[in-house]
Amino acid sequence: MQATQGRDSERLLPADAATRDVAKELYARVADAPIISPHGHVPARMLLDDASFENAAELFVTKNHYVTRMLHAAGVDLAELSGADPRRTWGLVAANWHRFAGTASGYWLETELAEVLGIRLPINAGTAHEIYDLVGERLADPAFLPQALFRRFDIRVLATTDDPLDDLGDHDALARLDLGGRVLPTFRPDAYLDPDAVGFGDSVSTLLAATSEPATFAGYLSGLEARREHFIRHGAVSADHGVEEPFTIELAPHEAEALFQEVLAGTADAGQRRAFRGHMLLQMARMSVDDGLVMTVHAGVHRNHSSATYERFGADTGHDIPLPTTFTRGMRPLLERFGLAKDFHLVLFTVDETTFSRELAPLAGFYPSVYVGAPWWFLDAPDAIGRFRSAVTETAGFYRTSGFIDDTRAFLSIPARHDAARRADAAYLARLVTEGRIALATAERIADDLVDAIPREVFKL
Amino acid sequence: MQATQGRDSERLLPADAATRDVAKELYARVADAPIISPHGHVPARMLLDDASFENAAELFVTKNHYVTRMLHAAGVDLAELSGADPRRTWGLVAANWHRFAGTASGYWLETELAEVLGIRLPINAGTAHEIYDLVGERLADPAFLPQALFRRFDIRVLATTDDPLDDLGDHDALARLDLGGRVLPTFRPDAYLDPDAVGFGDSVSTLLAATSEPATFAGYLSGLEARREHFIRHGAVSADHGVEEPFTIELAPHEAEALFQEVLAGTADAGQRRAFRGHMLLQMARMSVDDGLVMTVHAGVHRNHSSATYERFGADTGHDIPLPTTFTRGMRPLLERFGLAKDFHLVLFTVDETTFSRELAPLAGFYPSVYVGAPWWFLDAPDAIGRFRSAVTETAGFYRTSGFIDDTRAFLSIPARHDAARRADAAYLARLVTEGRIALATAERIADDLVDAIPREVFKL
Amino acid sequence: MQATQGRDSERLLPADAATRDVAKELYARVADAPIISPHGHVPARMLLDDASFENAAELFVTKNHYVTRMLHAAGVDLAELSGADPRRTWGLVAANWHRFAGTASGYWLETELAEVLGIRLPINAGTAHEIYDLVGERLADPAFLPQALFRRFDIRVLATTDDPLDDLGDHDALARLDLGGRVLPTFRPDAYLDPDAVGFGDSVSTLLAATSEPATFAGYLSGLEARREHFIRHGAVSADHGVEEPFTIELAPHEAEALFQEVLAGTADAGQRRAFRGHMLLQMARMSVDDGLVMTVHAGVHRNHSSATYERFGADTGHDIPLPTTFTRGMRPLLERFGLAKDFHLVLFTVDETTFSRELAPLAGFYPSVYVGAPWWFLDAPDAIGRFRSAVTETAGFYRTSGFIDDTRAFLSIPARHDAARRADAAYLARLVTEGRIALATAERIADDLVDAIPREVFKL
Repeated sequence: MQATQGRDSERLLPADAATRDVAKELYARVADAPIISPHGHVPARMLLDDASFENAAELFVTKNHYVTRMLHAAGVDLAELSGADPRRTWGLVAANWHRFAGTASGYWLETELAEVLGIRLPINAGTAHEIYDLVGERLADPAFLPQALFRRFDIRVLATTDDPLDDLGDHDALARLDLGGRVLPTFRPDAYLDPDAVGFGDSVSTLLAATSEPATFAGYLSGLEARREHFIRHGAVSADHGVEEPFTIELAPHEAEALFQEVLAGTADAGQRRAFRGHMLLQMARMSVDDGLVMTVHAGVHRNHSSATYERFGADTGHDIPLPTTFTRGMRPLLERFGLAKDFHLVLFTVDETTFSRELAPLAGFYPSVYVGAPWWFLDAPDAIGRFRSAVTETAGFYRTSGFIDDTRAFLSIPARHDAARRADAAYLARLVTEGRIALATAERIADDLVDAIPREVFKL
Repeated sequence: MQATQGRDSERLLPADAATRDVAKELYARVADAPIISPHGHVPARMLLDDASFENAAELFVTKNHYVTRMLHAAGVDLAELSGADPRRTWGLVAANWHRFAGTASGYWLETELAEVLGIRLPINAGTAHEIYDLVGERLADPAFLPQALFRRFDIRVLATTDDPLDDLGDHDALARLDLGGRVLPTFRPDAYLDPDAVGFGDSVSTLLAATSEPATFAGYLSGLEARREHFIRHGAVSADHGVEEPFTIELAPHEAEALFQEVLAGTADAGQRRAFRGHMLLQMARMSVDDGLVMTVHAGVHRNHSSATYERFGADTGHDIPLPTTFTRGMRPLLERFGLAKDFHLVLFTVDETTFSRELAPLAGFYPSVYVGAPWWFLDAPDAIGRFRSAVTETAGFYRTSGFIDDTRAFLSIPARHDAARRADAAYLARLVTEGRIALATAERIADDLVDAIPREVFKL
Repeated sequence: MQATQGRDSERLLPADAATRDVAKELYARVADAPIISPHGHVPARMLLDDASFENAAELFVTKNHYVTRMLHAAGVDLAELSGADPRRTWGLVAANWHRFAGTASGYWLETELAEVLGIRLPINAGTAHEIYDLVGERLADPAFLPQALFRRFDIRVLATTDDPLDDLGDHDALARLDLGGRVLPTFRPDAYLDPDAVGFGDSVSTLLAATSEPATFAGYLSGLEARREHFIRHGAVSADHGVEEPFTIELAPHEAEALFQEVLAGTADAGQRRAFRGHMLLQMARMSVDDGLVMTVHAGVHRNHSSATYERFGADTGHDIPLPTTFTRGMRPLLERFGLAKDFHLVLFTVDETTFSRELAPLAGFYPSVYVGAPWWFLDAPDAIGRFRSAVTETAGFYRTSGFIDDTRAFLSIPARHDAARRADAAYLARLVTEGRIALATAERIADDLVDAIPREVFKL
């Protein structure tokens, strides 16, 4: 995607003129580099259907909990943001746009409007209708269909996130298209590993039935292995694990078998359910060592904090809240067994930034398997990216970090998110150069590697 | 209050020239804006008496634990700072002034001397007597009496912090004066809610007697409600809660009744006393939902860390030390019941800055009731305010924060503290403008709102 | 040591031109100031032997876990870094040098090459042999023998870290040389205090035998006291304590005696072993109050995280990982007894930076005994030092911090480390000046004191 011209093109770059000059040069190297997106939530089906987006509300708001949560905090009922009256939904966004000032979500949305749709009006109550209509016009143009945008965005790799029992037919169909890049499935087994997940027992039963395995712990493991194999055959390179707590534990086979029967029977207490989750995370590492799938862990979020909201609107509606998180002791059983295993890749993501300098950088600075995941979710924002680099680099350098992941289901936001990260990284690198800490040539190599060689190595692309 | 002229007027603004120009413009908009102080500890009686301050020691040192603690750390016995020999007390401050370099307390005191008293000498052992005498001269001038200063500071709202049984007669008397602003009481019931508070049993008995309520849990709640009603009639807009741990818990009425009897009888163990505190914090939220008082929570401080100091000098003598704090799980029971309640306002203050990006911004970015309290106590300092904005804004914007609170009993420091916060916010906003993240017009609106619309909305003024 | 000339001489100083000018002036004052190193791990024997370093691998790599861990993370077997084939070891470093970009280790090593050895080639696979040979040439020159370097580095105080049973004969011998500075032993009794330490029982038995004390708790304490006395007679000024958790506890003498017998017998459970450690940390404070040794505590590291690595390569091989740490409650029993004791000095070091603003600055801002230790280990890096000053100064100023400690066994890195810290402090001070927060004269005094008066006071030198 073409970078914007003029002063605006320097956004997110440092204020200091000398540093900004270096940052501009570094950013220019990667501004138009292809996008590698090894972790995200765009549905394969959306790409395959290639239906036009309908309007600004659907495009930017209704499924985008980054945006809806802020309006909800402002007193807007989530029901009003369902898109039933999309012009009104967009109008609520516009009227509250000052609330997004300084947020990452606001920055991305403005970038999407300007850079993808070419709409450079300020957003407010007065411009709401005009923008809504302009967006509608653009979306009616075939150039703004998902597949056309995929090509225009120059996406070389886009990973989706998929249920282990997905047949991945959509991915097969996408592979036959000429998109200029691959769409890869990602194995996401949380619902089958966490006894506290809604419908856990049914999920396991379905898994066992689908893989013709007996209801034993060994059968359960085999079933999971079979589905991973299915994913690998369809191009998957990673398995993703969302856990509230990065806790792992070794269990003897007979202990694991007994625990499996208890959690299936629903008789396990909280401690047993925790042990089961912790042992399954370790088993997932074991499978990754065996089959080569990169293991990503997204840890430390209390999901569905507001029960009333969950009951009315379901999950992923803006009320997942981070928790204090620590990896040092909890991941140790896993690392004791697999931390030195050849070709094992374990990428640790956090929304507790205290872990960056305290734990993740020291871990990734020793274990060849461990990479520090790029700033995730609430931390995927310019200042937070700067803090991440500052906290991690002095201990672990750049080459133990994962490269940017956008983690988004908002397809149109992908280039805006990658662009913001590239700018933030250029800003940080430029400061290292200006402060005489690294040579310009070194910074250039790193800038290049951060958007290509590093994510390709980490995610085995 | 008039801003200073020349180079000195640019203090706390960013070094980079382009950013500083923007910051100067933003700061200039609000430099002379009236002061809204919705949380603090200035005694109403002091304003009512309108007696002159006696000397530099009384004015700046003896009751100011921000200052005395630093001298204590330097080896000065707190007894030497009692003000019995005020010239000597001030001399100890002056001789140790290098120890305050870079501290917020030092910055404020220098600002007070220069801006309020017009004394622009450097502070050191050599100038101690001269400054002491100059301060004495100023204080003898009626223009430096508390009420005159109140008008000169252009304070529109000043909230005090008061015992629930206070008759608030002083506030009535103040309301009849022409101060140019309101002095509001704040309901602070900690001593009546925490079984571990000194004299808890007596406090509760006095409350029940004063409100003619029986010694039942229902009577106790009614007594508290009656006193809140009394505060509301006298202009209170908020109830403040200082807790070591932000923990809440639902209890069935009969459980609460039984627990109440145990804590009153002194037979409750540590877990029961914690449950009682946690349930009462939830009950306070319930009352706020019912009566409309804004609920502020100041959490996470171990009070009176040094028993020997507490025994000799009492509370608030400089040895309250923050603790690791987390809100996500502990506040959930309260938020499950009241987080979506219409017109409920809950302002969460912390001295553990790890919670800003991890918990408070995500909570305030979803719950319409939750606001992130401005940097408090040790964090009310220029760099810390910058870190706060950086940590909070990208997730929750500016409009989910509380506006500045000075939290001080040092009346003369109020304009210095508000001025420092305005400068720090202007600095942060200016960077967002210079980095192309928000438009200048947006920054202007936010700068204005931070000192007026935002605190008025959050504190229902 | 002479500062470098030209642009390079400005490294680590702020990008903003006006701020950099101030920083240059402040740095210039201290660039060539003598080195005071009150905590580190250079072996006295190495200095006494005064044997030439052999090659670049031995000098920079084989014993330097800051460097080997990064290569290990890159997939290099630690066995390849043993120095058996030193040219190949150095070649592995050079080929992986991009991985060190932005790290403190990389910055120091480049500084050492350039400033100590005068080798200003970029490090990469192409220059590896040339640099290896040039280093070899330098090391063959008597000017690069340890004692000559000691004089050239202008080290006035260098503290080693020593086993309590060390006879300190090497220190005696060093004291008879004309090095231009003192080499002081430091009492480090961890192995004798922690029941979980390898060989704890044997260590205690040896201590008791060496000091002719009975196997009672009182005898054990006397034995430790006797060895501290021995250290004091040989110039020691401090006792150092490395603990996983900063936990202390008071025990009655008979409880301590019973516990001592249990830990010696190996029958103590985890809770009892923790209590023993916690009580011994308190006893060490008591001894410091009695004998005047400064007490330093390095807390919060999980040692030997990778058992397989520990078994193959031993301790201090790069896999010590920090833990979440808190001091407020854990150190309270110690501070309740000794926090106000006259002339007691307690320096608290952390690798959990969340404690800086939350706990250490408030503690050091009240207790006359407590000093905030300079950024340690992973935090001894330019950005981290900046974060440390920002987090600590506003609450505790500069005079409650310890002054820089290099904590290194890499002798050649000592001037590079001190120089980097001086630059980082100059950068922070310069910003305070530019932002109008302190006068230039104040900054000058602080810059001077940070490298001389402050460490001399804190470490009683």
